[in-house]
Amino acid sequence: MTPRVVNTTDAVRQAVSHARHGGMTIGLVPTMGALHAGHASLMQIARASCDFVVVSIFVNPTQFGPNEDFARYPRPLEKDSEVCAAECIDLIFTPEAAEIYPVDFRTFVEVPGLDSVLCGASRPGHFRGVATVVLKLFTIVQPDAAFFGQKDAQQVRIIQQMTTDLNVPVKIVVCPIIREADGLALSSRNQYLDADQRQNATVLYHSLQEAEQHVAAGERNATVLVEGMKARIVATPGAELDYAAVVDANGLQPVEILQGRVLIALAVRFGKARLIDNVLLENLCK
Amino acid sequence: MTPRVVNTTDAVRQAVSHARHGGMTIGLVPTMGALHAGHASLMQIARASCDFVVVSIFVNPTQFGPNEDFARYPRPLEKDSEVCAAECIDLIFTPEAAEIYPVDFRTFVEVPGLDSVLCGASRPGHFRGVATVVLKLFTIVQPDAAFFGQKDAQQVRIIQQMTTDLNVPVKIVVCPIIREADGLALSSRNQYLDADQRQNATVLYHSLQEAEQHVAAGERNATVLVEGMKARIVATPGAELDYAAVVDANGLQPVEILQGRVLIALAVRFGKARLIDNVLLENLCK
Repeated sequence: MTPRVVNTTDAVRQAVSHARHGGMTIGLVPTMGALHAGHASLMQIARASCDFVVVSIFVNPTQFGPNEDFARYPRPLEKDSEVCAAECIDLIFTPEAAEIYPVDFRTFVEVPGLDSVLCGASRPGHFRGVATVVLKLFTIVQPDAAFFGQKDAQQVRIIQQMTTDLNVPVKIVVCPIIREADGLALSSRNQYLDADQRQNATVLYHSLQEAEQHVAAGERNATVLVEGMKARIVATPGAELDYAAVVDANGLQPVEILQGRVLIALAVRFGKARLIDNVLLENLCK
Repeated sequence: MTPRVVNTTDAVRQAVSHARHGGMTIGLVPTMGALHAGHASLMQIARASCDFVVVSIFVNPTQFGPNEDFARYPRPLEKDSEVCAAECIDLIFTPEAAEIYPVDFRTFVEVPGLDSVLCGASRPGHFRGVATVVLKLFTIVQPDAAFFGQKDAQQVRIIQQMTTDLNVPVKIVVCPIIREADGLALSSRNQYLDADQRQNATVLYHSLQEAEQHVAAGERNATVLVEGMKARIVATPGAELDYAAVVDANGLQPVEILQGRVLIALAVRFGKARLIDNVLLENLCK
């Protein structure tokens, strides 16, 4: 069955309130649309644990920089609706920008420290936009749980921190990265890649795999791992490195020696596409 | 009956949840304690419109600057509890700082533009602290309505903006300024005044009254009003002017000609006490 589509705050609140009064638990999958199997996976996990699942589709202007791809970001609403239907979603929330950001809007949520490193370094203001819109989606929908992909590791970390710090009563569920058969992490931006770029884009996954294997073999020196990944990426045709980093998974600050919970993260540009990928390593002893 | 006192997020949520499941509406009166008749008035208004009224008492460290009065701010919890008892309050929430700001806390809410003018100019970071703690109190208590005094006009305006912008489902109720018989607006900081300062502190009210009378007589030039107030304050023994301003009541930006909704606001220091007062004028025609 095609899910119901609403585009106002009042309508989504009314639908959710109705479900809640019927004793249902509410799940939210926030997206920017251009839905792929990664999003479908989030929906399946939400569907398995919540009675009433809302998917929001909103290409959030405040998380795009002036030279980024806001205007050309794909918006295939009909196809998105079919993906949601296939996953038995109850409600799609597709607000216009003016519904989320009225003329006099001026409040922002910031998570200093976490928002200026990694992707935040090359995308100033991006995570301020993310934190603010996610908080708004939480206060609008008021779900019991919300579902995010580990592919956007820094986004997940910032949302966890914001939710805890602001006492927002929403459980954050982090879901595994979904990949193509050759290892490329699914992303709405993969469709910007031409055939050659698409083939070469597996360098992110292969670099991370190689780093992970080094760690499994006992390597604990972050510089060795970073230099190995950089060398591989720089040697790849069409690849332009944004960053390769080994950071503490909590504070997202670079580490010298891997220990405990560590995130290895990459951002690489191929033409118009900026791709990210990561691997989270836990319980590392020195 | 003495109200129940709780100091953890879990305990206040449990009590509120119990009341809500009993069909009650929830009111919140956020305070920093040192309760006076102004606070009692907020409680009475809350009591009249909500079934279950929570008073929070929390001297919020993040809204005090390094040279301000956080350490010596009065904390008379026993007397405060009596004030709440007299107003038939259901629950007092008195968290420790570590309950509100755990070690790794780092998220802030900002309302740029509104937070840097008037009191924000001489108290940098103050309204960031206010907006953040009020949002946290809202997400912790989840009241239907929250009650604030018009005495802190800029605080009220920022909280209204933040609540609207972040879709927080809490009704903001603004309550009238309560004054001593001679016109001095009630404030916990009035107790810092010695006898002479206390007597001279009525200059805030008298300056505002004079300005209001000029407006009633047809004066629309903001500079004339501001200069009149400044002259009166500067001529008062022990008074040190922080600001005298005539601003648009929505954007808090200075106006040249009074029109529509206008706020006339003052901040004046007497020794260790920084006092504020204001008058809100509505429906002004040119």
